[in-house]
Amino acid sequence: MSYSDYFGFEILNTSSETNARAGILKTPHGNVLTPIFMPVGTNSAVKMLTNEQILNAGAQIILANSYHMYLRAGCDLIRKAGGLHKWMNFNKPILTDSGGFQVFSLSKLRKITQDGIHFQDPINGSKHYITPEISMKIQQDLGADIIMAFDECAPYPCDYEQAKSALDKTKKWLERCFEAHKNYRQALFPIVQGAFFEDLRAESARFVSKFDAAGYAIGGVSVGEPSEIKNKITAYTAPLLPFNKPRYLMGVGTPVDLIEGIKSGIDMFDCVLPTRNARHGTFFTYSGNKIIKNKQYESDFTPLDENCDCYTCRNHTKAYIRHLFKTRESTAGTLLSIHNIHFLIKLSQDLRNSILENTFESYSKKLLAGFNSVNKN
Amino acid sequence: MSYSDYFGFEILNTSSETNARAGILKTPHGNVLTPIFMPVGTNSAVKMLTNEQILNAGAQIILANSYHMYLRAGCDLIRKAGGLHKWMNFNKPILTDSGGFQVFSLSKLRKITQDGIHFQDPINGSKHYITPEISMKIQQDLGADIIMAFDECAPYPCDYEQAKSALDKTKKWLERCFEAHKNYRQALFPIVQGAFFEDLRAESARFVSKFDAAGYAIGGVSVGEPSEIKNKITAYTAPLLPFNKPRYLMGVGTPVDLIEGIKSGIDMFDCVLPTRNARHGTFFTYSGNKIIKNKQYESDFTPLDENCDCYTCRNHTKAYIRHLFKTRESTAGTLLSIHNIHFLIKLSQDLRNSILENTFESYSKKLLAGFNSVNKN
Repeated sequence: MSYSDYFGFEILNTSSETNARAGILKTPHGNVLTPIFMPVGTNSAVKMLTNEQILNAGAQIILANSYHMYLRAGCDLIRKAGGLHKWMNFNKPILTDSGGFQVFSLSKLRKITQDGIHFQDPINGSKHYITPEISMKIQQDLGADIIMAFDECAPYPCDYEQAKSALDKTKKWLERCFEAHKNYRQALFPIVQGAFFEDLRAESARFVSKFDAAGYAIGGVSVGEPSEIKNKITAYTAPLLPFNKPRYLMGVGTPVDLIEGIKSGIDMFDCVLPTRNARHGTFFTYSGNKIIKNKQYESDFTPLDENCDCYTCRNHTKAYIRHLFKTRESTAGTLLSIHNIHFLIKLSQDLRNSILENTFESYSKKLLAGFNSVNKN
Repeated sequence: MSYSDYFGFEILNTSSETNARAGILKTPHGNVLTPIFMPVGTNSAVKMLTNEQILNAGAQIILANSYHMYLRAGCDLIRKAGGLHKWMNFNKPILTDSGGFQVFSLSKLRKITQDGIHFQDPINGSKHYITPEISMKIQQDLGADIIMAFDECAPYPCDYEQAKSALDKTKKWLERCFEAHKNYRQALFPIVQGAFFEDLRAESARFVSKFDAAGYAIGGVSVGEPSEIKNKITAYTAPLLPFNKPRYLMGVGTPVDLIEGIKSGIDMFDCVLPTRNARHGTFFTYSGNKIIKNKQYESDFTPLDENCDCYTCRNHTKAYIRHLFKTRESTAGTLLSIHNIHFLIKLSQDLRNSILENTFESYSKKLLAGFNSVNKN
């Protein structure tokens, strides 16, 4: 038995001038058409949305956060419910992160040892300790299709020594993760670290490639660095990962970052941006990000984007959503979240189709010109 | 031309032992099966829900608030959009209240004269003045199917003189409303006032009955009085209104109040309770109101009510919704709102069917026994 009884990845076509590829990721809960954007359901729900709304927005796979599920619901409860799929009644693939990144970004009184991470719950002060083995146990209880290695994410900026030290731990912990994880119905993805140092990224990519995994992730990006630096390190790192396996760029991103990532050979993306932006009134369009409360939309009876066919754009106008947003009706956040999530998923699938049709280069260029035009309006 | 070209009310059956009746209200935007519960969309959206969710919960007609639309969106904007139906893309009947009750309950520095009401916007301090004529103009701009007379609502408790004075103004203002309103595609409903004094209610009911209206409302209830007093004055007042026209009990109510109102011959109800309760974590069940955050639901993998077939109950468990509520995920409020709204609409339609089948007395008794059992659990 191995994970390949339950998982597979088929590349259907590649772009001739870039590293972009179109594929199919097979999981125990169905197929995912890559490249794909995955909405984030931190607490086992995508913020402000129901499963029906997520599915109607085109979601093929979603994320949940081990860190939040472990601290807020408790893994015993999710195991008792029969795992995350039954718990939240979501019958498509689910991916959980390991908790490493959240411990890094959210916890108080964090103390990292060679063995694991001690931290305090920022809400109730309770003390916790997570090791690679405990993270695997948590993610087994949650039962997602794809689970992530427990890693140490270096901050931005950080010096070489700090990045090297985090990478060394990440490497040792990866061995322990694979040692601890024996459920082949859950695919364990290693994570490349190494901050923004090319030699460390190369070392990390070589190291993770030694493990026969169903897919590989690039972590340690979207930690505050400028987009150019993120895109540069992604372009450098992605081709160093096994060609015939899906590559997942963690915590990315914007419409532009999605295009840049796909160009570099990335197949999977996740980010809280579409829903966070929505709650703050920002929406994606093919001519760049826009702000719903702007006065110019007060009597604008057109949809958020005239080329979008999401529920929100099929049914509502900017003027109506602006009014709801200004009167603090949460329905505004719901409608904008539907649009933004649909937008990124649709974008990933449109780019996929362009790869299949050998038009990725011209199509992505056209899209980029649109996204970058916003400041000229 | 008259309103009867666009509106009609047909009584299909009446209960033999009570005043309950089952009917069909015809409007320019379709039929409504009465008795009916109408969800409230204060700012032209039912809180936390999309139109799709409201319709899937069974909504046949919804309310919007003139007061909020006038102050927050502006009537020019709604008129420019083509009226509320187009503005919010809701193609079923809409009812707007006149703003009288909201000026009474929400405004600062209210000053009531014989001619109208001066008030300040509680948010930005701007000064406004609404007369019966202005209320009719506002409601014409909004373009709802059913519009309400501009009235003065007496507080609870209040003395006889105060109730009499408010009623006298309400009577004069009703004449001015009918004088000002000439659009027969919008049915103007008079409102019975008179606080909790039977002779004033009788006087008011006699007065409004002189106007040939498409329906009649009972206002001035749900202003803080105990349920018994509300149900008593409703039982007294409803039969004094024209038999062959729909009767609307404003701002009511709970599942029990709905049954009591229907028993008294009420055909239409509205209340913010189902959505407000939902946001605070309370949900309706056939055995009374329950509180989702209670520890007993922590690992309860059954639906909110096992006899409910709403989206929430078909898809989610108490344990899951409790977790979302406790982690402040707004999806919890959305799921509970769907359930509570569906619950009251379904209740009104089940009672309607029991009237049609001549089983209202036994069916309503059985339901009341269930609703009142909660404290014994």
